[in-house]
Amino acid sequence: MIEAWPTADDPFGHPREACGVVGIAALAGRRVDAARAAFFALYALQHRGQESAGIATQVGDRVHIHRGMGLVAQVFTEDSLAPLQGPVALGHTRYSTTGSSVLANAQPYLIETLHGPLALAHNGNVTNARALRRALLARGVGLVSTSDSEVLTLMLAEPAEGEDGVPDWPARLDRIMTRVQGAFSLVVLAGGALYALRDPLGLRPLCLGELIGGQGEVVGHIVASESAAFGTVGARFVREVAPGEILRLDADGVARLRAPEEARRPALCVFEYVYFARPDSQLEGRDVYMARMALGRELAAEHPADADLVIGVPDSATPAAMGYAAAVGLPYGEGLMKNRYIGRTFIQPGEALRRSSVRLKYNPIRENLAGRRVVLVDDSIVRGNTMGPLVRLLRQAGATAVHVRISSPPVRHPCFMGIDLASHAELVADRLSVDEVCAHIGADSLGYLSVEGMGRAVGTGPRRGHCAACFTGDYPVNVDEHRGERG
Amino acid sequence: MIEAWPTADDPFGHPREACGVVGIAALAGRRVDAARAAFFALYALQHRGQESAGIATQVGDRVHIHRGMGLVAQVFTEDSLAPLQGPVALGHTRYSTTGSSVLANAQPYLIETLHGPLALAHNGNVTNARALRRALLARGVGLVSTSDSEVLTLMLAEPAEGEDGVPDWPARLDRIMTRVQGAFSLVVLAGGALYALRDPLGLRPLCLGELIGGQGEVVGHIVASESAAFGTVGARFVREVAPGEILRLDADGVARLRAPEEARRPALCVFEYVYFARPDSQLEGRDVYMARMALGRELAAEHPADADLVIGVPDSATPAAMGYAAAVGLPYGEGLMKNRYIGRTFIQPGEALRRSSVRLKYNPIRENLAGRRVVLVDDSIVRGNTMGPLVRLLRQAGATAVHVRISSPPVRHPCFMGIDLASHAELVADRLSVDEVCAHIGADSLGYLSVEGMGRAVGTGPRRGHCAACFTGDYPVNVDEHRGERG
Amino acid sequence: MIEAWPTADDPFGHPREACGVVGIAALAGRRVDAARAAFFALYALQHRGQESAGIATQVGDRVHIHRGMGLVAQVFTEDSLAPLQGPVALGHTRYSTTGSSVLANAQPYLIETLHGPLALAHNGNVTNARALRRALLARGVGLVSTSDSEVLTLMLAEPAEGEDGVPDWPARLDRIMTRVQGAFSLVVLAGGALYALRDPLGLRPLCLGELIGGQGEVVGHIVASESAAFGTVGARFVREVAPGEILRLDADGVARLRAPEEARRPALCVFEYVYFARPDSQLEGRDVYMARMALGRELAAEHPADADLVIGVPDSATPAAMGYAAAVGLPYGEGLMKNRYIGRTFIQPGEALRRSSVRLKYNPIRENLAGRRVVLVDDSIVRGNTMGPLVRLLRQAGATAVHVRISSPPVRHPCFMGIDLASHAELVADRLSVDEVCAHIGADSLGYLSVEGMGRAVGTGPRRGHCAACFTGDYPVNVDEHRGERG
Amino acid sequence: MIEAWPTADDPFGHPREACGVVGIAALAGRRVDAARAAFFALYALQHRGQESAGIATQVGDRVHIHRGMGLVAQVFTEDSLAPLQGPVALGHTRYSTTGSSVLANAQPYLIETLHGPLALAHNGNVTNARALRRALLARGVGLVSTSDSEVLTLMLAEPAEGEDGVPDWPARLDRIMTRVQGAFSLVVLAGGALYALRDPLGLRPLCLGELIGGQGEVVGHIVASESAAFGTVGARFVREVAPGEILRLDADGVARLRAPEEARRPALCVFEYVYFARPDSQLEGRDVYMARMALGRELAAEHPADADLVIGVPDSATPAAMGYAAAVGLPYGEGLMKNRYIGRTFIQPGEALRRSSVRLKYNPIRENLAGRRVVLVDDSIVRGNTMGPLVRLLRQAGATAVHVRISSPPVRHPCFMGIDLASHAELVADRLSVDEVCAHIGADSLGYLSVEGMGRAVGTGPRRGHCAACFTGDYPVNVDEHRGERG
Repeated sequence: MIEAWPTADDPFGHPREACGVVGIAALAGRRVDAARAAFFALYALQHRGQESAGIATQVGDRVHIHRGMGLVAQVFTEDSLAPLQGPVALGHTRYSTTGSSVLANAQPYLIETLHGPLALAHNGNVTNARALRRALLARGVGLVSTSDSEVLTLMLAEPAEGEDGVPDWPARLDRIMTRVQGAFSLVVLAGGALYALRDPLGLRPLCLGELIGGQGEVVGHIVASESAAFGTVGARFVREVAPGEILRLDADGVARLRAPEEARRPALCVFEYVYFARPDSQLEGRDVYMARMALGRELAAEHPADADLVIGVPDSATPAAMGYAAAVGLPYGEGLMKNRYIGRTFIQPGEALRRSSVRLKYNPIRENLAGRRVVLVDDSIVRGNTMGPLVRLLRQAGATAVHVRISSPPVRHPCFMGIDLASHAELVADRLSVDEVCAHIGADSLGYLSVEGMGRAVGTGPRRGHCAACFTGDYPVNVDEHRGERG
Repeated sequence: MIEAWPTADDPFGHPREACGVVGIAALAGRRVDAARAAFFALYALQHRGQESAGIATQVGDRVHIHRGMGLVAQVFTEDSLAPLQGPVALGHTRYSTTGSSVLANAQPYLIETLHGPLALAHNGNVTNARALRRALLARGVGLVSTSDSEVLTLMLAEPAEGEDGVPDWPARLDRIMTRVQGAFSLVVLAGGALYALRDPLGLRPLCLGELIGGQGEVVGHIVASESAAFGTVGARFVREVAPGEILRLDADGVARLRAPEEARRPALCVFEYVYFARPDSQLEGRDVYMARMALGRELAAEHPADADLVIGVPDSATPAAMGYAAAVGLPYGEGLMKNRYIGRTFIQPGEALRRSSVRLKYNPIRENLAGRRVVLVDDSIVRGNTMGPLVRLLRQAGATAVHVRISSPPVRHPCFMGIDLASHAELVADRLSVDEVCAHIGADSLGYLSVEGMGRAVGTGPRRGHCAACFTGDYPVNVDEHRGERG
Repeated sequence: MIEAWPTADDPFGHPREACGVVGIAALAGRRVDAARAAFFALYALQHRGQESAGIATQVGDRVHIHRGMGLVAQVFTEDSLAPLQGPVALGHTRYSTTGSSVLANAQPYLIETLHGPLALAHNGNVTNARALRRALLARGVGLVSTSDSEVLTLMLAEPAEGEDGVPDWPARLDRIMTRVQGAFSLVVLAGGALYALRDPLGLRPLCLGELIGGQGEVVGHIVASESAAFGTVGARFVREVAPGEILRLDADGVARLRAPEEARRPALCVFEYVYFARPDSQLEGRDVYMARMALGRELAAEHPADADLVIGVPDSATPAAMGYAAAVGLPYGEGLMKNRYIGRTFIQPGEALRRSSVRLKYNPIRENLAGRRVVLVDDSIVRGNTMGPLVRLLRQAGATAVHVRISSPPVRHPCFMGIDLASHAELVADRLSVDEVCAHIGADSLGYLSVEGMGRAVGTGPRRGHCAACFTGDYPVNVDEHRGERG
Repeated sequence: MIEAWPTADDPFGHPREACGVVGIAALAGRRVDAARAAFFALYALQHRGQESAGIATQVGDRVHIHRGMGLVAQVFTEDSLAPLQGPVALGHTRYSTTGSSVLANAQPYLIETLHGPLALAHNGNVTNARALRRALLARGVGLVSTSDSEVLTLMLAEPAEGEDGVPDWPARLDRIMTRVQGAFSLVVLAGGALYALRDPLGLRPLCLGELIGGQGEVVGHIVASESAAFGTVGARFVREVAPGEILRLDADGVARLRAPEEARRPALCVFEYVYFARPDSQLEGRDVYMARMALGRELAAEHPADADLVIGVPDSATPAAMGYAAAVGLPYGEGLMKNRYIGRTFIQPGEALRRSSVRLKYNPIRENLAGRRVVLVDDSIVRGNTMGPLVRLLRQAGATAVHVRISSPPVRHPCFMGIDLASHAELVADRLSVDEVCAHIGADSLGYLSVEGMGRAVGTGPRRGHCAACFTGDYPVNVDEHRGERG
């Protein structure tokens, strides 16, 4: 384990955290294997982070924890799961965008406090982390990592005002809600209960479900980043945790400790709709799959094309491509196959094989493409490195025209709330106009969905605001700490 | 490494070999990184075997080899690739159906002979292995493994009749062609040249391509199990290696050492069309993807259904489902999402989570299914464990009817030519009638494609015979050694 | 990594720390590869701890650290050493007596503070750890481990009284000296300088040396647990760090920040002389080897024997045996060979081999023993499991009498200052009289060195007190926190 | 696993094999955990090879085997031992002097033959391996490794003359005895019985023992490279296997299949006495320890010294030093301490630490050396790299004179029978005269034991010849294949 330690003035090497969290709590008298349920839920949230995984449970005064590097299925064996006894569990799967991929950053984060162990799992990115860190350090606290999660955990270790030897967890959590800026969907294990929090803007998703027993009865509760995790553990979707809400899950059920922030317009990350969430998850009351089809339909309305066939870049753009095809009345088909075993390889293509980088991942279906004018739908263009080779690939396979359609607007601004996009300089749409991008990728035509079209597809309104800062630059939180950092 | 050694009388613990092979040979004066090309070709053949991978190259009198357990991308690093210099390379990726997953069985297989090193990569299964082994042992040869490949290699080490101190590789390879029964697509590295062989029935695929250089010129040749490997290395498909043919690939190009067996009707495994090959590979002159769509169309003709939506079990049944939908004039849609990160987990669901096994892998798209009568297309039913839970899953998601359609006939017989299906006792269609299977899986109706319909879809004729023994029990080779073994 | 988290009320699962520490600081303008020197010094201190090892260096504002489980030579490679640049280094090798052998406990311990990174390596055991932990937790600090070292590090993170935004490291270290009870030889890296501390009783050793360059010039300084580490790095012994002293080592040389505690009688652990330290180290001005010979001579004076040959239990008792032999005028010889490759094995001897446990480690030299009356010298008897089988082994090899002589008094009390001995119940001398022990081990006679004789051998006087609490029960520090714990 | 394959004309990259072998056979009706006993015996033979270890057992027709890289205690766990059931076991621990340290070379070597599995463990080096390999290859056999052991195994797979479908193992083993030249102590598992062979010259040791049960009864037999292995498994030494002898060990006891070669003068490697064997082993009827003391006494007679103290280079030279001291009437003492944890490190000392290489391993006991004239005894000088720094180390510690005495003659010739010494060019005594070596190492005087003195110490006579070719160049076998190879 080689670590380079950043100092207090340079704390921003820390990874963007676009992770998956889960919490499980059994009802009194019900047998729930909480750790096992957490395992399967994390397994379903694997797409949100492949770097490390961990689960913590509590029995009496002791917290049991297992964390490791790699995929959920690699980190956990029956042997490592066995000691994780107890009726409550919290789990985390981590995504890292930096090189500091070390076990020390694996979550859940766990500390001992005056009132026993405290564990925390975090999805999101704190935008005032620098200020919060300095506040902690000024208290004479030492920090062992660069992660936001340690900051949040140590903030929770500090007594709330008016505490008299008995920890007031709701007050401590409330302090998180008021002092911390940015994105945070948190699950906390403290004093034997589980707490679930979602930041006042609801930037990252978090939802609540009921665990169902053998006779259809409710045996416990679950919170998870996405509802797609519920199916694997036999849970029933109840509702989303609301922005600004704090819930307690324990043997007695679910209690609301803090009501949602009604006054504020929520700002769920719209990229969850565009790309990040599983298509079989629900967000704000609808299947993500259907929202993606709607994005395709809006795209068709804005940018129709005179063509013979509509195909999507597999797998993420398939629903948008099907929506597009249905809306313009063209046949939908598959024109690109994706190598399903695409484990990461670090082998370089080498000189002789220089042209093959995209070919590692995609192969054309020639008989489907030959002699046809093709609409190629993708969900987004970030750096713009892949689309050009794909267009060439289709032409080599016989496509007579390639019209590229993107089911989201041009990405022009970095994200500071937990999604790793890229810096300004790397964003192709920040450097080039749409026509220039079209020429750059060699397409016959290029159309992006408008911000308005995207809004129509995902739905907006008094209770359904979204953060679209990566498209608009209109950040819902103060990002002064980050100005100049990635620009 | 724990190994239990089977004795001469019990040699059939050996794994069925449904693997991927590749061979690369540079033309004289052309710079080709043969090992790197072999790596990327194996990477594209990963679906044919995930147990182990290996590459061997030859420089002068020395063969360099690297083999390891796991996926191609795990086995090879730049460090392990670096020593693999030389203008010819052969590679192998291995599939194992038994527990004896050990490095000693990883291929290529390599021995020293009187005339220098000899390496071999094998896809297929030898049906008279027992007799061939005994013949070798009777010669006083010792065998270090239970694999067919060692048998083939040691047969090649034996001088051909009439040899006079100079090895007659063509004659030795010819001996393989006449004495060995069953399936074998072989790539052999001997005396600095590469040889490619395909068994007289052409049971397993093997195809030939040209490596293209920076100016579009031919710089070498490639043989690979499937043409989908060609795209990743910038190669151009030339033709299939014909059943019974022997080719030599070296610095001078490609030479035919043995003509195809014209008299015999070929018998390419039809399951390559149904399921095994990549959809973006070509077999017998057409894209596998299109053949699968054709299977769906034939299925529609034989078993139409009164429904609202056609969906496929992802990913393998998607083209058949699209073909079915187009033929019956119903909309095609996606109703099931597959967890893309489905690494194998050995964690048991546990009591409380008993119902969730299929849910680990699939989630329904509720809004697409609710209130609809659904046709669910799959490519095959082997053991019949998965289809029932899938049908229930669709009903729970709101489907009002589920009609199951299978784009191949009932699987009633085991395979002895290299595809791991199951024993007689495990094959659900061998125990139950179609109606009983329908009841077993809880579908509203069930229709299998007929053998004749399958023949129409994949094409038959004087030069296009197929082995369909798993459906018909009509084996193209003598399988007496195996009678009773899996029945 | 499975961890069971002890709560605040049960913090004493933590391992006794009998470890090795080292610090290296280059003089200004001198090229010293500080990390490499630390590596070789740790290598020489390997006997003080085999569980984990680590080295930290500082370059500008950044600390680089590498820690790992296992032997020093296993933890470090040229690759892991390469990033550890900079003119100061501190290292640690850890001994653990409990099962919680996890990377998270590996040292050096490293945190970020308001004033940059702070690293610490600790040899010893804090006897008021419980109180210190509670004080920290009450400040709202969270603790991530159960080790004393985290407590010490976080105490150093707290501003000293009167600090005004600039850290007063001497004052903070002074606070350690006054508030922490028990054994601590510390090396601390803070603000770019190295600090060395030894507790007021000097319970654990720590010594200072000069690093010598190619022309014999002084190029830097070193502190290490034992002087035996100096030879491997070409360093010259200067003196011991005095009890209660604080030194700063940096580019300017060595500065004394706090004078030794003159008033107090020191209490170096006498077991360092008896067994723990390397025989080629110096303690209090003399070679440990010579002290061990002196222990043997005193033992001879107190317990002579009528015998033909004196042998020692290899390797630790060899000098005592030679001293004994010389004093009584008997020939010294080798009667037992020790298996040099005694890596730990967890294979159980099994039923049939039940008698062989001591035989794994020792073999007799029959021709040296046959027909002789033997004196067998050992350094100590703790649990008493080994001596009986050794006596039997000598008899089987032909010894006609076996007189056991122990070069230290009976061990009757547990150690709370960092040496893992055993609990009261396990100490054979606490349960049995000397005669009973003699019968238990089957010796012809048994003699222990007296406390007074031990004192004569290791030297006592106004400035040379020793802790002999494990023999006398007279603890030099308050051990109330531990009462009942191991008794 | 990277392997570079040597061709038939360059087969001599193979490692010299100076290994340890063991075989265990239970008597009928006696419960012996043969694999466990083999494990502990290998553990005691660890000094003969640290590269890899393996054990094979037979139950009915199946051989179970486990092999791995590393120390015996690392290779075997209770889990890996558990499947190794059965009443006979053979084991091997391997020493390698070349870089090709790969699992494929780990022994026992195992093949399937016409008559079932055959396993073999080999200590020694075959001097006509090249000719034997070519004979095998000419039979059309392929070889998968470069080890002598594969050659021996495949020779055993070949039917003996006159066999009629039933294997005549004694005849096959006899063929080994007559055709194979060089050093071989073999243990073979074939047809359910264990065979032990020692080459006609008895170059490598091999001895026979009885396994003793709980009531002192004989429960089985053991053969092992050295008798030091017997103690760890509760076995009783019976005798050495004689040169040219073949034994069968099975449920019926021990049968002699071939009598020793009476006519030939034996040639046990004298280096086993000098350095290689454990001091607690017996060779030719005496403890190796006592032979080493005798070497020291002879050395004293030939090269006395005017000095104050005799010390040895630990650990191997200790008995010779004690013998020397007793003979010249000087006190024996310890002047050098060896770092007991001397695991191999690949960290280079670096520029600043250039002088410290010997200091890693040895530290002086200053108080023992200061002001004294010292005799430093070592067992041999091979390359001569270590002795010079040791002499300097003693002088730095205060020795006023250093007289070096070597308890064997100058090593002037390479070994081709299994001991890795060095090539001619590397042997310091082949390049320099004794006076030049003395100057080279900086000693006050240097004395080697003469060949005659060595003969007196280890004993010679009609039945006690020794191979001393490394000292005399008089090889007992034809080494033409190797001429020029290392010279």
